[in-house]
Amino acid sequence: MKLEEGGLTPLYQQVMEDLKDDIERGKYPAGCRIPSEAELSQMYSVSRITVRRAVSELAAEGYLSKKQGKGTFVNRRKLIRKICQKSEIQSFTETCAEDGRVAGAKVLGVEVVKAREGEREFLGLGEGAELVHVKRLRTADDVPIMLENNFYPLEGFEFLLEADLSDTSIFDYVQKRTGRVPRGDDLCTLEVVRASPEEASALKVAVGEPLFYEKIDFTDQDGRPFLIGKQYIVCSLYVFNI
Amino acid sequence: MKLEEGGLTPLYQQVMEDLKDDIERGKYPAGCRIPSEAELSQMYSVSRITVRRAVSELAAEGYLSKKQGKGTFVNRRKLIRKICQKSEIQSFTETCAEDGRVAGAKVLGVEVVKAREGEREFLGLGEGAELVHVKRLRTADDVPIMLENNFYPLEGFEFLLEADLSDTSIFDYVQKRTGRVPRGDDLCTLEVVRASPEEASALKVAVGEPLFYEKIDFTDQDGRPFLIGKQYIVCSLYVFNI
Repeated sequence: MKLEEGGLTPLYQQVMEDLKDDIERGKYPAGCRIPSEAELSQMYSVSRITVRRAVSELAAEGYLSKKQGKGTFVNRRKLIRKICQKSEIQSFTETCAEDGRVAGAKVLGVEVVKAREGEREFLGLGEGAELVHVKRLRTADDVPIMLENNFYPLEGFEFLLEADLSDTSIFDYVQKRTGRVPRGDDLCTLEVVRASPEEASALKVAVGEPLFYEKIDFTDQDGRPFLIGKQYIVCSLYVFNI
Repeated sequence: MKLEEGGLTPLYQQVMEDLKDDIERGKYPAGCRIPSEAELSQMYSVSRITVRRAVSELAAEGYLSKKQGKGTFVNRRKLIRKICQKSEIQSFTETCAEDGRVAGAKVLGVEVVKAREGEREFLGLGEGAELVHVKRLRTADDVPIMLENNFYPLEGFEFLLEADLSDTSIFDYVQKRTGRVPRGDDLCTLEVVRASPEEASALKVAVGEPLFYEKIDFTDQDGRPFLIGKQYIVCSLYVFNI
């Protein structure tokens, strides 16, 4: 494996990409220990500093974990969320199921809040209208991945205040009660924000760590405004396929 | 404007969301100075610490800029990239045009590299095949936004080694030479990585700042494998609409 020095791609990044390629292609499957720094440095004919940098970047990006005194191991691959393939947005529960993981949901709270002007506009609500805010921590095989915030109009969704929404799909639950489901091709805006202390503590990441912030104005199967979703997702555990 | 304390959404985050709402709805347009900390703290009946936190988070997310001794100003809105709306991926040039900005491209280098196994597999190339790597810095109204890396098979694209690809759409250029264009609905994977020193210096951001990393295996209008794109985008300047 000869790397090209002095080119457009720094050496450590070439090592990163080669290792990622090997991980994706199953040469180093999840749970497996990758070769030591000394071995990698020999394999690629690069310095150990270069190897160390490549490995620590891949660890920061969520691909590898260093274990003190034991070596460096391949993480389980990131959850892959498909968006907009054939106009279907995968739910978190479906995303997990597709990868053989068990989706969990811990209810952090349910409250009634006043709707903002922009929210009232989208949902078609009058002045003073209120929303039910359901805040849950979503896990995949018990690993915290996402803080889920769904806002339904209070009127018509009062039942959410009494519902048991642990470890369940809120979309399925609401469908059983109202017959309404998200249409699935609503516009989603995706940005990156920094984890606040509260978010960091719930998601078990460092304060300031980047999170995907996904906001969706959901309509239902008949195109009627339905709910507003605001999700915060750990970047190092998640990939979007769009 | 009465905020609700002790609820599921921390006070500073409610202030953030209200300010974002006001910015998006044009109450505070780009370039405008927002009310001072003292004024905001009075408007929302919250402490100045809460206001300061909301404002500095919005600055970190790219919505506001603090100017020493002058106040806090609303930034130009983030570039919005539409993906997968009617199966069309917006090019960078189109994304800028839609927002009335001038897309620029500075060529950082063009080189020939050996194709990795995964790259050969997608592009249908044999052992030892080579790629042309075109690396450019993309700007919008002269602000660096994206490091663009496009990899074409060397065979058939030798002309790229001699081409002047400054301030031009590489897709348009290649189309003129070969008649081939990206089909536009190829699978794109989107993750977040940290800016390396090289990336940070090119994009004029801090080392470690989060970047979108977008990888696309492009096919052409006939569904034939075409090129591989690897783009690094400044998160604080960019929003995906999907």
